Amino acid sequence: MVSLSNHEGVARRLMAQNIYDDEAFFEGYSQFPRSREGLVAAYEWPALRAMLPDIRGLRVLDLGCGFGGFSRWAIENGAASITGIDLSEKMLAEAQKRSAGMPIKYRRDDLETLELGGESYDLVFSSLAVHYVADFDRLLATLRAALADGGALVFSTEHPIYAARHDPEWAGDHIFQMRDYLVEGPKTTSWIVDGVVKHHRVISTMIRALHRAGFSLTDIEEWGPDDALLARTPDFIEHRIRPMFLLVAARAEP
Amino acid sequence: MVSLSNHEGVARRLMAQNIYDDEAFFEGYSQFPRSREGLVAAYEWPALRAMLPDIRGLRVLDLGCGFGGFSRWAIENGAASITGIDLSEKMLAEAQKRSAGMPIKYRRDDLETLELGGESYDLVFSSLAVHYVADFDRLLATLRAALADGGALVFSTEHPIYAARHDPEWAGDHIFQMRDYLVEGPKTTSWIVDGVVKHHRVISTMIRALHRAGFSLTDIEEWGPDDALLARTPDFIEHRIRPMFLLVAARAEP
Repeated sequence: MVSLSNHEGVARRLMAQNIYDDEAFFEGYSQFPRSREGLVAAYEWPALRAMLPDIRGLRVLDLGCGFGGFSRWAIENGAASITGIDLSEKMLAEAQKRSAGMPIKYRRDDLETLELGGESYDLVFSSLAVHYVADFDRLLATLRAALADGGALVFSTEHPIYAARHDPEWAGDHIFQMRDYLVEGPKTTSWIVDGVVKHHRVISTMIRALHRAGFSLTDIEEWGPDDALLARTPDFIEHRIRPMFLLVAARAEP
Repeated sequence: MVSLSNHEGVARRLMAQNIYDDEAFFEGYSQFPRSREGLVAAYEWPALRAMLPDIRGLRVLDLGCGFGGFSRWAIENGAASITGIDLSEKMLAEAQKRSAGMPIKYRRDDLETLELGGESYDLVFSSLAVHYVADFDRLLATLRAALADGGALVFSTEHPIYAARHDPEWAGDHIFQMRDYLVEGPKTTSWIVDGVVKHHRVISTMIRALHRAGFSLTDIEEWGPDDALLARTPDFIEHRIRPMFLLVAARAEP
């Protein structure tokens, strides 16, 4: 485990922590199936894909694009254009490499301070990135302004139950330990390396923020494995005991 | 603790369990401040009240009216009419007694099989009752049909995190134990007496059911004590560690 000494300072300046450019983190993260094979290898992807509108002809923004798995999927499935944004130089370099010859615009930017100026999109997508953002209201207002009326925002985020896990997470047989579920704000955890800062928000806080920003909620799923997936991967029983992912779809109201 | 031997049979026949007419349960329940002094003594009431539309002139339905605390509040605050429905004869008798001389229509009915025929309402309210209902979809369809377009549904229910508590609930200092959060359906618990059957549904399941039934979600709150309440009642720290109540407001879409 590598300890990152600068995360508190980073949080205070209201920039998202750039953990993905940490050598040890990047090395560890790169080993996950979803990293090696792209988002389509992630087990929550079918549920998230089901929340997407027909992507053909849409102008798409991919927030926290990482290695560009979703951006490539969007282009392959008929998106009119796609812009992938990430804070990590390492991830963007890898995304570029994997997307050679594809019409994808990658850009380095911080979701905490993102400005979209006169850009206009029909779909904003984000996989497991918004929990790194402290100022969710600001981000949502920026996205609403850049979305056409009726446009879609579809994102996954760490489920707040998982985010509120006690250390140790498990007690005995299938018993999950939680604490301070309603205490929101930055939480420092160990994931691949020590000192990873994520911003804990409960479900109702996220929904109220969407409403305030001019979105209506169109779908939501506290993701867990279905029986078929559980039969193939019995270890996923943990995701039935306590969900790890929350999937959300919203519409930009006129 | 009194064990109710018939709860499984009741659940199979798809009638809500009538636990409130159990002698020992009724006796215990009647001691709570919210029972003695009415819903307005419940600590989540200010948050729930804030979700209500201006009640003046509205035709109101109160599901699981219990001792009639909300029904009386509604009439006192200008509702045009109010119908209180409950399955418990004991509670309805007490509600009648407390509402002497007030224009409140009380009716014994089962939320599991409720029919509202040609009735029309502007607001359906329910405090901590829908978790006794197995067929939430059926209930919501019935309510949507009886609500005027644009009418409001405001309800509180047991929070699914609390419903998924392990027994024992607490491990050591401020650590909540949970299991099978995503395993929905009837759960038998001990609350005042043994053998109380509640129907566990996660937040996203409830929201999707609302959407299917023709509602849009307008507000939601995972209720916890604010700092002032916590200062007055330090024991409420438990409600910050794991929420017990979920408050929901929805609008009947045309």
